[in-house]
Amino acid sequence: MPNTSLPSIAILGGTGKEGPGLALRWASVGYTILIGSRRLEKAQATAAGLNSMLNSNTIQAMENGPAARMADICVLTVVQGAHQAALESLKDDLQGKILVDATARVDFRDPRPPAPPSAGRIAQNILGPGVRVVAAFQNAPAHSLKKNLGGSLNTDVLVCADDLPAADQIIQLAQAAGMRAFYAGGLDNAIVVEGLTSILLSLNQRYGVKTASIGITGVEK
Amino acid sequence: MPNTSLPSIAILGGTGKEGPGLALRWASVGYTILIGSRRLEKAQATAAGLNSMLNSNTIQAMENGPAARMADICVLTVVQGAHQAALESLKDDLQGKILVDATARVDFRDPRPPAPPSAGRIAQNILGPGVRVVAAFQNAPAHSLKKNLGGSLNTDVLVCADDLPAADQIIQLAQAAGMRAFYAGGLDNAIVVEGLTSILLSLNQRYGVKTASIGITGVEK
Repeated sequence: MPNTSLPSIAILGGTGKEGPGLALRWASVGYTILIGSRRLEKAQATAAGLNSMLNSNTIQAMENGPAARMADICVLTVVQGAHQAALESLKDDLQGKILVDATARVDFRDPRPPAPPSAGRIAQNILGPGVRVVAAFQNAPAHSLKKNLGGSLNTDVLVCADDLPAADQIIQLAQAAGMRAFYAGGLDNAIVVEGLTSILLSLNQRYGVKTASIGITGVEK
Repeated sequence: MPNTSLPSIAILGGTGKEGPGLALRWASVGYTILIGSRRLEKAQATAAGLNSMLNSNTIQAMENGPAARMADICVLTVVQGAHQAALESLKDDLQGKILVDATARVDFRDPRPPAPPSAGRIAQNILGPGVRVVAAFQNAPAHSLKKNLGGSLNTDVLVCADDLPAADQIIQLAQAAGMRAFYAGGLDNAIVVEGLTSILLSLNQRYGVKTASIGITGVEK
């Protein structure tokens, strides 16, 4: 059963690879999860699959707009080509919320690092000051998220935001999902985190693996 | 005594913080090192200090141009404001060489990530196809380089280059200096490595340390 003292989370564009993995991890530790999609039937199919994996029926399906309005925290996990249009269509629904932007605008066929502004900065510019934008989870490995539910993952999440209390909430969310998380500066810094995807793809290709990852050291006091 | 079967290395703009540290590590394992500067007297002062630390007289001092012409591999460690002018003045001297660009164009007073093109790409564009540009050592912590000479450092070097054999030579150089090193893609990817400086500064500030570092995992086969 969801723990109603925890914030509820809408995964907007939650029918791809990244969104369902995050949804599973949070649902498995008690968060109320709403899967959002432009099409209700797609959201329903994804939610049904996730509920089946969890042997529950707690994950709900909605269209993106109603999901955004109902949730305390929204996580945007659309593909890069849908990023701007999704934000523009959800601008009204997102007012007053925290919007976590997980978009890394790297084209896998031409994986050069993107130029500023960061996806998070673009989101903030579209949504205006009434939405607290946090950039995070751009590199969370989709294939790992579904493993060891309720346990920990060997993944570090770099959280960028101009709003420190909002960043702290998302650091807590990442930790609840079993990932280490660090505050890595303002929204403009998120362009580096997006670009790390290019580095990881190059490492995977050069070293013949699929598991290259970047970890933070030296911040223990 | 230098091992003359190893490539000789010119550290251009080698009188700052980063250059002398790299020079020490390479000299201590037998590489012939030339310290270059725009002013011979500055190069001489730095070389004298390093020779004193090594209890030797093997590190030589020259002006940048002659140092570049004499060396097999050149490492550029100028501050960002001097980057373009240094490359333009050394263009002729560098033809036929490998030029390692260690520049991270992050202003510590306004540490936002730089926009593409990367410093390495700028260097390649100025120097032309007769110089093999490799971007590396942008984040090597200057205060650590002088410690544990001849031993290993807990630092990962991301090496970006369009020329793979040149990258492999610099990976060997990094390893000879006691650092792990990885090929991280073409010169355009170096913009991400430059931007990591912004992330590390933010981590240091948020967590009250000076030691934040980024390491690569998951590439062991």
